[in-house]
Amino acid sequence: MLDYKKIIEKYSPTLEERRKLENISNKVSASISSYCHENAINAVPKVVGSFSKDTNLKDGDLDIFIAFNRSYSEEFMEHEGLKIGHAVLPDAEERYAEHPYVSGKIDGIKIDIVPCFQIKFGEKKISAVDRSILHTEYVNEKLSRGQHNEIRLLKIFMKSAGVYGSEVKVSGFSGYVCELLVIAFGSFSNVIKKFSETKGKFIYPDNREEFDSPVVIIDPVDTGRNAGAAVSPENLSKMKLASKLFMRNEDESFFRIERPEKATVYRDRGTCIKIFRVPKPDRTDDVVYPQAVRLKDTLFKIMNEFNLEPVSFEIYIDNYVEILIESRMCKSNMINVRKGPPVDIDNAIEFYDKWISGIAARGPYIIGENIYVDIETEPMDIEKLVRTNINKYSIGKNLDIYRNSIEIIDMPRDGTRMKILDRFFSKSIFD
Amino acid sequence: MLDYKKIIEKYSPTLEERRKLENISNKVSASISSYCHENAINAVPKVVGSFSKDTNLKDGDLDIFIAFNRSYSEEFMEHEGLKIGHAVLPDAEERYAEHPYVSGKIDGIKIDIVPCFQIKFGEKKISAVDRSILHTEYVNEKLSRGQHNEIRLLKIFMKSAGVYGSEVKVSGFSGYVCELLVIAFGSFSNVIKKFSETKGKFIYPDNREEFDSPVVIIDPVDTGRNAGAAVSPENLSKMKLASKLFMRNEDESFFRIERPEKATVYRDRGTCIKIFRVPKPDRTDDVVYPQAVRLKDTLFKIMNEFNLEPVSFEIYIDNYVEILIESRMCKSNMINVRKGPPVDIDNAIEFYDKWISGIAARGPYIIGENIYVDIETEPMDIEKLVRTNINKYSIGKNLDIYRNSIEIIDMPRDGTRMKILDRFFSKSIFD
Repeated sequence: MLDYKKIIEKYSPTLEERRKLENISNKVSASISSYCHENAINAVPKVVGSFSKDTNLKDGDLDIFIAFNRSYSEEFMEHEGLKIGHAVLPDAEERYAEHPYVSGKIDGIKIDIVPCFQIKFGEKKISAVDRSILHTEYVNEKLSRGQHNEIRLLKIFMKSAGVYGSEVKVSGFSGYVCELLVIAFGSFSNVIKKFSETKGKFIYPDNREEFDSPVVIIDPVDTGRNAGAAVSPENLSKMKLASKLFMRNEDESFFRIERPEKATVYRDRGTCIKIFRVPKPDRTDDVVYPQAVRLKDTLFKIMNEFNLEPVSFEIYIDNYVEILIESRMCKSNMINVRKGPPVDIDNAIEFYDKWISGIAARGPYIIGENIYVDIETEPMDIEKLVRTNINKYSIGKNLDIYRNSIEIIDMPRDGTRMKILDRFFSKSIFD
Repeated sequence: MLDYKKIIEKYSPTLEERRKLENISNKVSASISSYCHENAINAVPKVVGSFSKDTNLKDGDLDIFIAFNRSYSEEFMEHEGLKIGHAVLPDAEERYAEHPYVSGKIDGIKIDIVPCFQIKFGEKKISAVDRSILHTEYVNEKLSRGQHNEIRLLKIFMKSAGVYGSEVKVSGFSGYVCELLVIAFGSFSNVIKKFSETKGKFIYPDNREEFDSPVVIIDPVDTGRNAGAAVSPENLSKMKLASKLFMRNEDESFFRIERPEKATVYRDRGTCIKIFRVPKPDRTDDVVYPQAVRLKDTLFKIMNEFNLEPVSFEIYIDNYVEILIESRMCKSNMINVRKGPPVDIDNAIEFYDKWISGIAARGPYIIGENIYVDIETEPMDIEKLVRTNINKYSIGKNLDIYRNSIEIIDMPRDGTRMKILDRFFSKSIFD
């Protein structure tokens, strides 16, 4: 039998950490209150996030919202909100997610101070962040005593399975979703059982089939919203498989957040591995990551167009945005089969006229409903193909400027280690 | 303006040829009649085929059916039919299509003598050949004077476009279909216009949408039958395109049955071209051809399984069955991505257990709903892959015996010419 108490203890904040968070949040809240009082601003501090719900793991952050009266304009709320943030949190930086906020540190604890509007259950939401306060209220009202640690257990399990976190880079389950799951099914083991038995999409409550996402978990404070929308198909699959494996063999290894660095061997795979690198734009991961994915998709498209047969990839964002692509071939063939229009449309005649003159390597000829032609091109390597074709595609606001200066790196053969290669070669289910 | 009369004349039988066919068919019919009389067999000779309908092109054959009274058994009809055939046609060979028949020559004219049952319009068909007599009667009743040459023109056009002939190897339009088309639309040009305007399937009459084939032409003597069932999608596309091109520019080149031998250049396409050869079984093309296609499909399947990326092929049947396959690669990669089961099914756990032990080159990992693993194999060339995998597949009754002795020929680099390479390199729309 697993010693759940020990597992929870290992990853929960110590009494000391709890007190420290308590002190800091009280102090910051008090500062906000007095600032508002002195400046006659109708706004109140609200501690939100996992700490406020007693579902936090150790080494967590603090999230403190400043809830403005709804009579203020959005501009006022944002502008004054930032001012209050700076006043109560020295040396804070301004950040921008859906709204601007400030982020800083006190005594080593990261604190985000986020202005928002105060809303009540059922009221029309004004901004996405406004909901957070309701989430905290809902969870605190619904959770019974023992369930806080059930939630911690679920979070540890999900972290260990690599599916925890709703940021785009992870596309997994958020802390709030963990809370909703335990509220819905009662305990950690019931949640695991549920995932191990689920076929296809995960939907709760199960009559809500109108959403497209693989995971649908209706947000009780805004019942038109899917709180599980961020979860990717891969992460649902991982969670199902992890749950099945755990049901079969309840083992401590399912609660291991830190992984030992594996000494990954870079094998020769007989394929072509290239790393494409651009500087990381000064934006949050949630902004950069989708653009990195689009860069990867674009590189795949180009390589597919010239039949280099890309087969796998890895994305790694650090100081750089790096995309690794493995393809079956390093050079394009001399012959490309070009599919022309179907004979039913008038363009077919144009296509025929163009290629019948003898400039084709073969054809035109017909397969099924379409005309085809084989054309001869000089064989081109990946680098040349990418450089000559990348400008046809838009990769996204912040990466487009780097399109013409992509660094293209061969897989090093001299033992040089790269994080993205470590990731690629150690790819496994739950990392 | 095209001189249609000249075109028709060029490919129609001369008066001399007509007389010769007339004489031979009269003579053979008379012999059949007297044989039946002498042996008290209730059967009559029926001249069928294009000669009997005056829609034949020059250098054609004769088809003479022996129509037995329906009171006979099938065995009797077939047995006595062959006997009569041998009696009236010395040195004839027995052949087998849907039924046995004899085939021989008199004065250089090829003659098929085919036993069948005599049926009337609307009577339940007994064998496929029984219908031929009704086809002849129907066409002769419906055709008006000038239409015989309209049919000849259509046949010449279709031969020139490479779409004439319902045998499996061609999968095109039969002579009977040409006759039905002219009867339906009145003239050669109306038929061409119709094809040039057709989008999607060709259906006549147009309310008969229950057939799956690209071309549906209801047989008026058996209205549950599609007389156009043999036509492949490619040949319908070719006929549409040829018709469009002809409508744009009425040119004599659309009526050129004989093509000058082109001096095809065997280019280096930077791909891998192999020819697979087995002896031709002693069966008709209609039996052998589908098996050759299955051999091609099997080779494609094997090459696809190991990611050799087959891209094009050619089939050529002469003394051998030859399959040419062009692929992007000559050797398999070392790394193969193996797609495992979806995580929703129990096998997923087995797959996971099997590969997690460390024998995989990478993984297992998850993409979408499935588990995958990369496995390392020794790179294998096409020959080795085909030889080790071909026995998993059934190619067909007559080719299976050659599975283990397939000759695999590299594309010759020394200028040696092969018919199949000529076909491959000169591939064009209307050949």
